[in-house]
Amino acid sequence: MTDDRKNSIGFVETRTIRVVEADAPLQLQCGKRLGPIDVAYETCGKRTPEGDNVVLICHALSGNAHVAGYHGPDDRKPGWWDMMVGPGKAIDTDKYFVICSNVLGGISGTTGPSSINPATGRRYGLDFPIITIADMVKVQKLLLDKLGVRQLLTAVGGSMGGMQVLQWAIAYPDFVKSAMVVASTTRLSAQAIAFDAVGRNAILADGYFNHGQYHDQDHGPDRGLAIARMIGHITYLSEESMRDKFGRNLRSSDRYGYDFNSEFSVETYLDYQGQTFVERFDANCYLYITKAMDYFDLERQYGSVAEALAGTKARFLVASFTSDWLFTAAQAEEIVDALVTGGKDVSYCSIHSPYGHDAFLLEPKTLGAVLSGFLDGTYAKLHPVERENSRPQPPPTVFHFRRIDQARRARVDYELIDSLIEPASRVLDVGCGDGELLAKLIRDKNIRGEGIELDQELVVRSIQRGLSVIHRDIERGLHQYAADSFDYAILSQTLQTVKDPEKVFRELLRVANRVIISFPNFAHWACRLQLLWQGRAPRTRQLPFRWYDSPNIHCLSLKDFDRFCEESGARVEKRIPLGKSRLTPVRFMPNLFAAQAVYVTSRNGGRAPSCIPAASKSRL
Amino acid sequence: MTDDRKNSIGFVETRTIRVVEADAPLQLQCGKRLGPIDVAYETCGKRTPEGDNVVLICHALSGNAHVAGYHGPDDRKPGWWDMMVGPGKAIDTDKYFVICSNVLGGISGTTGPSSINPATGRRYGLDFPIITIADMVKVQKLLLDKLGVRQLLTAVGGSMGGMQVLQWAIAYPDFVKSAMVVASTTRLSAQAIAFDAVGRNAILADGYFNHGQYHDQDHGPDRGLAIARMIGHITYLSEESMRDKFGRNLRSSDRYGYDFNSEFSVETYLDYQGQTFVERFDANCYLYITKAMDYFDLERQYGSVAEALAGTKARFLVASFTSDWLFTAAQAEEIVDALVTGGKDVSYCSIHSPYGHDAFLLEPKTLGAVLSGFLDGTYAKLHPVERENSRPQPPPTVFHFRRIDQARRARVDYELIDSLIEPASRVLDVGCGDGELLAKLIRDKNIRGEGIELDQELVVRSIQRGLSVIHRDIERGLHQYAADSFDYAILSQTLQTVKDPEKVFRELLRVANRVIISFPNFAHWACRLQLLWQGRAPRTRQLPFRWYDSPNIHCLSLKDFDRFCEESGARVEKRIPLGKSRLTPVRFMPNLFAAQAVYVTSRNGGRAPSCIPAASKSRL
Repeated sequence: MTDDRKNSIGFVETRTIRVVEADAPLQLQCGKRLGPIDVAYETCGKRTPEGDNVVLICHALSGNAHVAGYHGPDDRKPGWWDMMVGPGKAIDTDKYFVICSNVLGGISGTTGPSSINPATGRRYGLDFPIITIADMVKVQKLLLDKLGVRQLLTAVGGSMGGMQVLQWAIAYPDFVKSAMVVASTTRLSAQAIAFDAVGRNAILADGYFNHGQYHDQDHGPDRGLAIARMIGHITYLSEESMRDKFGRNLRSSDRYGYDFNSEFSVETYLDYQGQTFVERFDANCYLYITKAMDYFDLERQYGSVAEALAGTKARFLVASFTSDWLFTAAQAEEIVDALVTGGKDVSYCSIHSPYGHDAFLLEPKTLGAVLSGFLDGTYAKLHPVERENSRPQPPPTVFHFRRIDQARRARVDYELIDSLIEPASRVLDVGCGDGELLAKLIRDKNIRGEGIELDQELVVRSIQRGLSVIHRDIERGLHQYAADSFDYAILSQTLQTVKDPEKVFRELLRVANRVIISFPNFAHWACRLQLLWQGRAPRTRQLPFRWYDSPNIHCLSLKDFDRFCEESGARVEKRIPLGKSRLTPVRFMPNLFAAQAVYVTSRNGGRAPSCIPAASKSRL
Repeated sequence: MTDDRKNSIGFVETRTIRVVEADAPLQLQCGKRLGPIDVAYETCGKRTPEGDNVVLICHALSGNAHVAGYHGPDDRKPGWWDMMVGPGKAIDTDKYFVICSNVLGGISGTTGPSSINPATGRRYGLDFPIITIADMVKVQKLLLDKLGVRQLLTAVGGSMGGMQVLQWAIAYPDFVKSAMVVASTTRLSAQAIAFDAVGRNAILADGYFNHGQYHDQDHGPDRGLAIARMIGHITYLSEESMRDKFGRNLRSSDRYGYDFNSEFSVETYLDYQGQTFVERFDANCYLYITKAMDYFDLERQYGSVAEALAGTKARFLVASFTSDWLFTAAQAEEIVDALVTGGKDVSYCSIHSPYGHDAFLLEPKTLGAVLSGFLDGTYAKLHPVERENSRPQPPPTVFHFRRIDQARRARVDYELIDSLIEPASRVLDVGCGDGELLAKLIRDKNIRGEGIELDQELVVRSIQRGLSVIHRDIERGLHQYAADSFDYAILSQTLQTVKDPEKVFRELLRVANRVIISFPNFAHWACRLQLLWQGRAPRTRQLPFRWYDSPNIHCLSLKDFDRFCEESGARVEKRIPLGKSRLTPVRFMPNLFAAQAVYVTSRNGGRAPSCIPAASKSRL
């Protein structure tokens, strides 16, 4: 999983700085005070003179400040996110100045429960106060103040790191320009708390724990800590990845040993994970950090996630992994929904991965594309003058299109839709594909645009264009959007492919003042004649599929849609029947001669229908 | 979760019997010998003079012989499956004679690692030989021999109990008439082994374990055993049920305590579970029984699950629960697939439940309906004379039909399909609904019928009719069936509702010699005229839905299907165009005048098309 040394940032150094003095201790969330506090941190890359390229990386439970590069020529393993951070990598140290610090309560240099308590001269042990994610972030802010950092281009972190990123955006809204929350949540599930609790139990139950004062003993609570780590490790992998990696393989024999030694590969793997963890981590820190994660709960603290995030000003990126069952996609979507509800700028990608929660350390390609696209896009937005030059062009990747040919959609619809949209309006493009239309509208009409897209590759590509796009199936509804969130919603060549067109249409009418919908006309004369004379399911240029492999699971005509609008309480503002390829409206008997149609509809009135009268009562 | 005492079997008694003498020890799978062996067991109900009503219940990890009823008037809790076993209950002790014994290696009376080792006069501890599921079953067989049982009407068990049931069916194929495998698997996943291993680690790491010789100490390995139980307990619940039951609730306060005491409800719940388990269970037994579960692996032992089950003669019922992530539905389906591959008689129900693995103890209604339906059906099959009287009639439940109105299907198709099927043939009814057609064919034509159905309620109802039905979405394919497994496959009014008709049709052609398919004719004159003159998506009696709420996601005509057969390499043996309601074939211009059609098709030849020539080249 580690990159070649040649692509690495090279040698880095951990520095330690005192951010809280003993005589001016820090007020913690638990009510106690703590001081002095030292913080260990590392940096990579160079800060611009304007200080506008600072990226703060927040680490997870067992991470530390050593995020990338090597500590020296004999250092065998690079930092924990070396694959993501370095020259030319997703978080490109040629462009950005990266800071990563060890969290409060951590083991690797920052003050924590195994530090010396100045009041006693002994290690804190269980006398260390309970710390929270908010305390960790407060200490990080003190560090940045010391380093003269005035704003963060982005704060980014996975797992517990993502919790810190959320806390950053909430606590310091003007300081944080963007926030990248990966594989994280606003609060752990009951199941995750349960696993943490059992792990802590194993440590506390270890006979060598001795109230946390085990440092001068021959033995620490190693077996308890190893058991805690084993439990944790099971939850970081997915069932699928465990099956692929170990299955029921035996370590060294093809026969059972009929004893209690570890013999399945998965057992020896866990033994190894437990053992190496004991060598590099500390039982007290494990207790304090897992407790901080358990306590993190934006809903409890603010009443709701939406209220917690209401004051944030950052641009958000949320990413989750499909097989992560510890910090689930559903939890990530709660964050997304709360941000959408608050009208915040948010992108979301649910990355397909078999690696479970650990995917945030194991999916450099897709996650890297998303992070770098979002980061570059954010930088470009903040520097509009340099925009055209600095924004990277999306790579010429080959994509597998689902549902409908996006390329064809572009050729036929885009010009027309562009002409229908008022400048500077708010637009939701549902099924936005690779974001071409949104990008065009932003360029031509200076709209504020958002997209929804089902296909992961297209979502990534949209984010790489600097767009704000949410990865979601529109069939699940748009409940997260408030009524009238948009001036326009666009649904192009998609209505006939969704399972429940009525629900989708009603939702669009709710969230947008005007809904622009296009679809193929099933009552085109060619269809009618094919069915009439040949007695076959029609196939035309607009409806090129065979009956059994068509993505068009509903057949409708202009007339059907007129009636549908009537029944749905929608007003047809514009009704533009189109030929096969030209943009000139079909004016004569459109339900017979139009191959497709574009409608502008609205929920509760608006201008009278223009272009072609909507209420045309021709029997055809 | 416990039933009223009034519905209980009442008082029961645990008896212990010596099944293996010290001087004739039992050969175990690990190669060692063990003797003497005592077995604790309980019985409920009365054995028939023929001994044909014996039900063996196999318990799970922490269960025991006390399956139902009370041990005395002061006994506060009934047996572990009291809700399922008793007079009038799913396993009806008014009809059936129930035996449940404590497993080998268990705690409650059967010989295990905490029994006295006659060789030393001390407890076995870790000197007890490693036992396997096969050893447990061998000992149960010795018990049944002692009790004079000559055959089992059924063996039933959940979780590890299901493993024993599988082993019973394999080891004693003539003895076991039916097998009910609930929430179980042919082998644990890597993840499940991992959880077991960590639990054992916690016990072995406990300072008080003392190589299993802890009985004379003040303390046993209680904390280790409690931790093992806590881990297990998390895996028995689903994330959903934990969220519903505990969420992030605090036990006794609305504020955090900022210490390491258990404060979340889920923590105190786990503490309680761990503590009560320590009071009633034994650490040595936990080690041995989890190891037996880890070792159970029919694929390893026999080469494949199908080979393992090849020699079985029992009728099988497999049941799983949707939210069970320890013994998953996918694992249950592996058993089902292997049985189908071997041409065995198998029913399967994937029961929708939020309760995770524990659902087998918490879903008395649905699971009870399935178990009792299957059990009564099996009894009736073995006693054909009493059949009509003894088979219970399905209750008049109100069902919510999916996809297509089953009732209408019945009225129009059944008589015709009945007339097309040769007596005594093998029939697969795909989308069999409540089993009415299969039941009719069995009654009228003495077929050997099997069904596939997607809707849980309809599956339950089919099983209650005594039919063999598999709960599955046909879109997933029929890979488990060998080619030519059936004389006929029936797909009635369903082809136009599936996503991929081509795949479904090809699969049916593969598994059956003849495929009988019916569908509505989209080129019926009424449809043609509606589209032609009204320019609307047609609505007729056969196609009554609106364009946007139709389950018919594909539109096809007889002509389309003719061509489809041609392209699929299928021969049309019979082509029966039908009117709206009559069974008389439409002979004149069928593609224009038939409202629906029934086709008999085959893969590779057969009789020439009869009824209406298939190759009619009329342009209509």
